[in-house]
Amino acid sequence: MPTIFDRIEKPTLLLDEQAARRNIARVAEKTRRMGIRFRPHFKTHQSAAIGEWFRPEGVTAITTSSLDMALYFAASGWNDITIAFPANLRQARALNGLAEQVRLGLLVESVETVQRLSNTLTAPVDIWLKVDAGTHRTGLAWDAPDAAAAVAEAARGVTGFRLRGLLTHAGSTYTARGADEVCRRYAENTGRLLELHHTLEQRGLGPLEISTGDTPAASLCDDLGPVNEIRPGNFVFYDSQQIQVGSCGWRDAAVALACPVVAKHPERGEVVIYGGAVHLSKDFLTEGERRVYGYVCLPEGEGWGSPLAGGYVSAVSQEHGVVRLAESDLRRVGVGDLLCILPAHSCLTVTLMKQYITLDGNTIETMNC
Amino acid sequence: MPTIFDRIEKPTLLLDEQAARRNIARVAEKTRRMGIRFRPHFKTHQSAAIGEWFRPEGVTAITTSSLDMALYFAASGWNDITIAFPANLRQARALNGLAEQVRLGLLVESVETVQRLSNTLTAPVDIWLKVDAGTHRTGLAWDAPDAAAAVAEAARGVTGFRLRGLLTHAGSTYTARGADEVCRRYAENTGRLLELHHTLEQRGLGPLEISTGDTPAASLCDDLGPVNEIRPGNFVFYDSQQIQVGSCGWRDAAVALACPVVAKHPERGEVVIYGGAVHLSKDFLTEGERRVYGYVCLPEGEGWGSPLAGGYVSAVSQEHGVVRLAESDLRRVGVGDLLCILPAHSCLTVTLMKQYITLDGNTIETMNC
Repeated sequence: MPTIFDRIEKPTLLLDEQAARRNIARVAEKTRRMGIRFRPHFKTHQSAAIGEWFRPEGVTAITTSSLDMALYFAASGWNDITIAFPANLRQARALNGLAEQVRLGLLVESVETVQRLSNTLTAPVDIWLKVDAGTHRTGLAWDAPDAAAAVAEAARGVTGFRLRGLLTHAGSTYTARGADEVCRRYAENTGRLLELHHTLEQRGLGPLEISTGDTPAASLCDDLGPVNEIRPGNFVFYDSQQIQVGSCGWRDAAVALACPVVAKHPERGEVVIYGGAVHLSKDFLTEGERRVYGYVCLPEGEGWGSPLAGGYVSAVSQEHGVVRLAESDLRRVGVGDLLCILPAHSCLTVTLMKQYITLDGNTIETMNC
Repeated sequence: MPTIFDRIEKPTLLLDEQAARRNIARVAEKTRRMGIRFRPHFKTHQSAAIGEWFRPEGVTAITTSSLDMALYFAASGWNDITIAFPANLRQARALNGLAEQVRLGLLVESVETVQRLSNTLTAPVDIWLKVDAGTHRTGLAWDAPDAAAAVAEAARGVTGFRLRGLLTHAGSTYTARGADEVCRRYAENTGRLLELHHTLEQRGLGPLEISTGDTPAASLCDDLGPVNEIRPGNFVFYDSQQIQVGSCGWRDAAVALACPVVAKHPERGEVVIYGGAVHLSKDFLTEGERRVYGYVCLPEGEGWGSPLAGGYVSAVSQEHGVVRLAESDLRRVGVGDLLCILPAHSCLTVTLMKQYITLDGNTIETMNC
């Protein structure tokens, strides 16, 4: 009987729709139970069609990582959007245009940004203070309340700016391993946010909401603390990094890159696939000294099987991937066969691949098509 | 006076056309002088318009990294194309279609691939033996002539397969530093290829051409050895990795990603830019313990100045870049300003950005648009 794999000639991003819908339902149910707003980050799937899968779960508010992504989803009817990236002053005019159409949330972390935004924005916007709870990517330091208070005061002083609350990304959970460590780090992160929240409210700057969330904690923690909303994104598909964290099992991984085998090197325990940095990205996870650009599965029926023990993508160049396989698996794989790679980082693979083929053969486009 | 930078609102790939044309002319002149065929790899620029810049230099033969890229360039009149990637059996029918239109070169490295290709291909093709001269990505081992001879014999036995020669990628030069080391490694690579070449010709499998080439050697070596053609690609733009190798100076770097500054963290010596993994890719070079995702320049007139000493992109996530700057530079840079990042790896940045803006304001598209 012909399968989806028969028509694949080149690297193709397969999407297991049922797995993705289960992943969405699981987090949605958890947030309903906890009474927390679920504002999923759409930067992972980047697809209007997949966005629709969230509506039956009651999702009405979303997160994007750029203005372009916000415009794309606004065009398919999303009207409560937070751009979870420090507001870009050079796009102030376009931000204002979008704020005229939808409820738009912006992140600020300096008085200067608030002031300069206020020179251009005329439509009302929600203002979130971006807080750095310890990962030091960006944001106002959680333990420097004077600076945060100054930005909050500045925002409160601008007509049309609704000071909404404090927002952070619990980036520290991505390097944790297992539920205990993930939830401990998440709680530490949230505790820091709550401390700043308490100080600012005491200074009369409240009421302030709290927005947090990340895939590991959203997946693993039964208690997400006294927060108003969470914004995980990657959970919709997961990937090899999240399998390594323990956020999911391999059956929850909803995308795999099907790649033709183009060469065999049994003397090195390797095959070469058509599938490289322009498909998977150059992101990797580390296992000891190893860089792992993805776990490796074999096609199985209309999907893929469990990751092969000892199998991984060990190197990628522009179009090539080098795959290490155990000897027994190497014997099963020939030139012209397909391997299904669970990407190290699904968000970047989706950006590069631009579209999906579902396991029942439908093409789904992203904003990058 | 308004400059190109005034209209930039978001990450934008700037192209210095004059630098790119100088880079093309320099390698073209060298190959003319040496009497070597120049078959540039078009995987770096991926643009029909930029491809035209090679024609005045006498270029008539090109290299691509995929069938899709070959089809794209065939559509703009290139009719001598080598796909420098192990022939993908799953695309045999489409390869045959292209071979009916252009002189097509394919890479093989197993008897099985030759046999299975011969079942589908009816149009004539050039067959190159892909040789592994020591980098162990893929190819027939240079020091195992029996295996190479078997593939050569198989190819000679197929009507329409023209056994053209031996092809390698001198990947070892990319980790060299400076001309001496680059040229020593290139010579070692070519010497291995020549040894195999000699053995195969002695066995009556000649005449065989030799195809090699890589950006460091093409840029730095005065003697490219007794080869028939070279296939460098990256030299058209160069990037931070090539600056580190010593293949070029910063003035030769022909692309830079202009990125808005969205946050300042003077206490950490950092600014955050709008410009991350979906723009630059996650490729990096290493300097000691550091990962460098790109060198950092300031806009200067209608272009960019020299890389800032001590400045580099130290981390990238999906849309964020974290830039470390010396204290004196940090004082000069404010939120809303632009930084020009010389990508770690220009080929991957081009893939992600999909189009260029030249310094005189023209948009140039790639095959990914």
